[in-house]
Amino acid sequence: MFDILKRIDKPCDLRGLSNIELENLASEMREALFNRLTKIGGHFGPNFGIVEATIAMHYVFDSPKDKFVFDVSHQSYPHKMLTGRRNGYIDDAHFSEDSGYTNPDESEHDFFNVGHTSTSIALAAGLAKARDLKKSNENIIAVIGDGSLSGGEAMEALNIAGAMKSNFIIVVNDNEIAIAENHGGIYENLAHLRETAGKAENNLFKAYGLDYIYEENGNDIQKLIELFKKVKDIDHPIVVHIHTQKGKGYKYAEQNKEPWHWTAPFNRETGLPKVNFGGGESYSQMTIDFILEKAKKDKDFFVITPAMPGVIGMNKEIREQLKDQYVDVGIAEEAAVAVASGAAKNGAKPLLFTNMTFIQRAYDQISQDLCINNNPVTMVMNCSSFNILTDVTHLGIFGLPAFTNIPNLVVLAPSSAEEYKNMLSWSVEQREHPVMILMPGNQVTHREADIDYSEINKYKVEKKGSKTAIIALGDFYQRGEELFDAIKEKFSYEPTLINPRFASGVDKKLIQELEKDHELIITLEDGVVEGGFGQKIASYCGTRNIKVKNYGLEKIFYDRYNPEELLKEVGMTTEQIIEDLKCF
Amino acid sequence: MFDILKRIDKPCDLRGLSNIELENLASEMREALFNRLTKIGGHFGPNFGIVEATIAMHYVFDSPKDKFVFDVSHQSYPHKMLTGRRNGYIDDAHFSEDSGYTNPDESEHDFFNVGHTSTSIALAAGLAKARDLKKSNENIIAVIGDGSLSGGEAMEALNIAGAMKSNFIIVVNDNEIAIAENHGGIYENLAHLRETAGKAENNLFKAYGLDYIYEENGNDIQKLIELFKKVKDIDHPIVVHIHTQKGKGYKYAEQNKEPWHWTAPFNRETGLPKVNFGGGESYSQMTIDFILEKAKKDKDFFVITPAMPGVIGMNKEIREQLKDQYVDVGIAEEAAVAVASGAAKNGAKPLLFTNMTFIQRAYDQISQDLCINNNPVTMVMNCSSFNILTDVTHLGIFGLPAFTNIPNLVVLAPSSAEEYKNMLSWSVEQREHPVMILMPGNQVTHREADIDYSEINKYKVEKKGSKTAIIALGDFYQRGEELFDAIKEKFSYEPTLINPRFASGVDKKLIQELEKDHELIITLEDGVVEGGFGQKIASYCGTRNIKVKNYGLEKIFYDRYNPEELLKEVGMTTEQIIEDLKCF
Repeated sequence: MFDILKRIDKPCDLRGLSNIELENLASEMREALFNRLTKIGGHFGPNFGIVEATIAMHYVFDSPKDKFVFDVSHQSYPHKMLTGRRNGYIDDAHFSEDSGYTNPDESEHDFFNVGHTSTSIALAAGLAKARDLKKSNENIIAVIGDGSLSGGEAMEALNIAGAMKSNFIIVVNDNEIAIAENHGGIYENLAHLRETAGKAENNLFKAYGLDYIYEENGNDIQKLIELFKKVKDIDHPIVVHIHTQKGKGYKYAEQNKEPWHWTAPFNRETGLPKVNFGGGESYSQMTIDFILEKAKKDKDFFVITPAMPGVIGMNKEIREQLKDQYVDVGIAEEAAVAVASGAAKNGAKPLLFTNMTFIQRAYDQISQDLCINNNPVTMVMNCSSFNILTDVTHLGIFGLPAFTNIPNLVVLAPSSAEEYKNMLSWSVEQREHPVMILMPGNQVTHREADIDYSEINKYKVEKKGSKTAIIALGDFYQRGEELFDAIKEKFSYEPTLINPRFASGVDKKLIQELEKDHELIITLEDGVVEGGFGQKIASYCGTRNIKVKNYGLEKIFYDRYNPEELLKEVGMTTEQIIEDLKCF
Repeated sequence: MFDILKRIDKPCDLRGLSNIELENLASEMREALFNRLTKIGGHFGPNFGIVEATIAMHYVFDSPKDKFVFDVSHQSYPHKMLTGRRNGYIDDAHFSEDSGYTNPDESEHDFFNVGHTSTSIALAAGLAKARDLKKSNENIIAVIGDGSLSGGEAMEALNIAGAMKSNFIIVVNDNEIAIAENHGGIYENLAHLRETAGKAENNLFKAYGLDYIYEENGNDIQKLIELFKKVKDIDHPIVVHIHTQKGKGYKYAEQNKEPWHWTAPFNRETGLPKVNFGGGESYSQMTIDFILEKAKKDKDFFVITPAMPGVIGMNKEIREQLKDQYVDVGIAEEAAVAVASGAAKNGAKPLLFTNMTFIQRAYDQISQDLCINNNPVTMVMNCSSFNILTDVTHLGIFGLPAFTNIPNLVVLAPSSAEEYKNMLSWSVEQREHPVMILMPGNQVTHREADIDYSEINKYKVEKKGSKTAIIALGDFYQRGEELFDAIKEKFSYEPTLINPRFASGVDKKLIQELEKDHELIITLEDGVVEGGFGQKIASYCGTRNIKVKNYGLEKIFYDRYNPEELLKEVGMTTEQIIEDLKCF
């Protein structure tokens, strides 16, 4: 087991292997992938598809002198195995040593910590620029999947590459699918290129001024070695278009690519997940139910997503049911926001959804294309909680600072199922504001909620007390309830508990009321404190006769943390806050 | 004078004109442009080049039922003249009624308030989506210049358009130049298309899946009318590529396109500006001097800009002098940041510069591609002051909230020429942090400054006093000095005056010191208060025995304001702060 893989300590060890051994190595690497993924989950399809290409690339090029930049880097597991990190795959005790993405802290063969799409060509172009200034001569290789090509940053970089004059290799790993199906005109072009073995007229890459070469057998090690030898040390930029099979080597993944893009721990024989999620209520299902019902009743309503239907579990059947009321623009967050803004301007009712970490890509479009124009678009952001995605590249904890400081944008933070659903209903119908709704990241809870949110920045006093006011935002409202109970128990008085609902503004009138019989306001928010919700209140109270303590995360790129431990680290467990209260 | 133009109250009035009259109308429109631009300045080249195309578009299409979306919309003056707004051009008393961009508040013929590039296709695609949901049938026309095509959002939208199935017209107004020369592989493709009358192989637009038609004579009204008639009511997306002459009708602008992209008020006979700027010291010239000197001494150093060399006056001669130490990636802020990050990772010393409003486009790249990777890139942001660009689409006042809350990013706010230069020198040499330097927006002032800024978030106490501490950030430091003098005079004590230098963090040790003999901290910052600099201090002091008052702008999309009046409006003139001090 893993006999050959165990002999590969560094990429150049590959060159001592025979053709047969290289084939067997590929099998061992797939076994190693199974070993890790069945047990702890991770990206499946992208890694199973790129095993042979990774072997061939490391066989031909001389990493780390020659430099690989993997796009998203969710396909870098085989690369990790060949660059001294096989233990993260074959030895369960070492799983936690490897992140799911490239990581310079792990290895000199990794140059960037990445997790967002469409960045590889530009990052690699930067490596090449520095190489040229230093008059060095290594190969720079960007590896990008077809799905990532539709992102603006990738196309900006193709355009830049088209004007470069030195060695630069862009490997386009074309497996015919992003996470869900690909969307957009270029995918027809890629299909033509595949059908014609790279000879179709109107070659997208040539139109960008790039040299181009095609290989149909992107899972054939020897063909790929031959191919990469051809382009090694080339003196100009070239696109190497290889056709691979996503999920290759596992029938369930080959047949059903979308759910096998990423997998939870699963049973290899059956392909079924080891732990059965679902069953109970979820905010995702609530969102789907809302969308389906609304779409049926209102033909002006449509949903739009930049290639992320899965974040709310919107599977193919649901998408087909929605027909033209479902728009996937492909990986293209910027254009997605602009399309939604334009549609709202022309009378439609768009609901845009994706993960918080990805919508950062559209910061400027939210500000300019949407909010200056004040068009009524509803944006539903999943994974905006510290509690869901914990990889440094996928944190949702920067959403409050990023988006609550843009004028005109109403950021709503629901604290219960009823509030979430009522906010959705209110938002898609109103015509006054662009609205961002933060999908809760905690367990579903129930509590009666208002129907109308048109009085902007109006907080709701859920329990009226005195001395201390707890303003607990969104899915941290339950922590506010817990704190309420603890204060009552420890200090024998009832504080005030407030559900602010609006993350993007201060209820000044309420604060003025609180000042009369409260000494302290505590704010709790699910995100980084700096630039976020609570600091607005601290600033408003800066010269008032009421103290303010903001609780939240620090301005740090946390990575793969335990959520409950992190809360402790920043001192915001209920017990810690109770201790703090003794000192204020 | 303006006889024909005065008869055009709405676009359909064009249809009563003979061919000769249409030609004469074009001349009158250029006269109207001269009338406005010689007196109050504005975008020159883009408008002079598109007069004929605008006439032809409005002749053929039926605005506002048919909908035009102009990219950047700095070329929309002729459109404004033909849609009821000629007085803004021919009658000096009405100049201020028209913004320099499309504006739905001005006219039902304008759909979006835009000023950033590369948004038109996506916004128009949104209009088209809503049209299709409503089963309506108007024409949707995006008008985009060649320079804007390199922006990611535009290419994302080309890809989306390539998959659309209904009427959609993209007019590519190709005048062979952005503001400075175009950069990137697609411009070679556009050149081939021009040379072959649209018949070149590897047509970029066809590669995106779009239908395509070319017209060489983009300043010939009759040819254009014929062309637009062909595509009117088309049932699928098409690119209409027209070749126009930027600055047509004025020899200085035709011969020297870059400086005539935008002009200050000028003398028509000589082409010279009416007011001679320059002469005195400027932060722009300081930046140029620094770059030239550094580039000469250090071959690892280079500058990179997304198509904005002009923002620091980096003209062609200087660019040529810098050779391969100057990189213009075209309009592509996202890729520019990633390229800089990659280059820094590989040992180079990149200095990226543009305007603050445009770098918003790269929020996610600054966070992910740059700051997670903590690469030493220096970003110099011009126009980050409330005091320079006052159009709603070009405000620099959101820079503090946008960028001071991203981990690892050191945001420096220099308060004098010496400090600015020393920060530049320190930043490009250090290898620890990504750094953003806010180029001051006020008059150049001089004061001794530190050389080393490696002690992050260390504020500088410039004058030690008591009772009140003024923390005056960056180019508002001089306002701090003024306030210091006023407090001394009115209240007969000396406050403390602090130059924080670091906009992205709190000097906690200093605040703890201040707490001992101060009752109040006043923060002054050149930007929106919410999410910015001062709120970090207010939050830190929330439970301390020191009050904090944050002064700055409100979270509002201000538009074309008088800077001094705005300060008064938000209550932050020295006199107003002195009044406030009586109440705290």
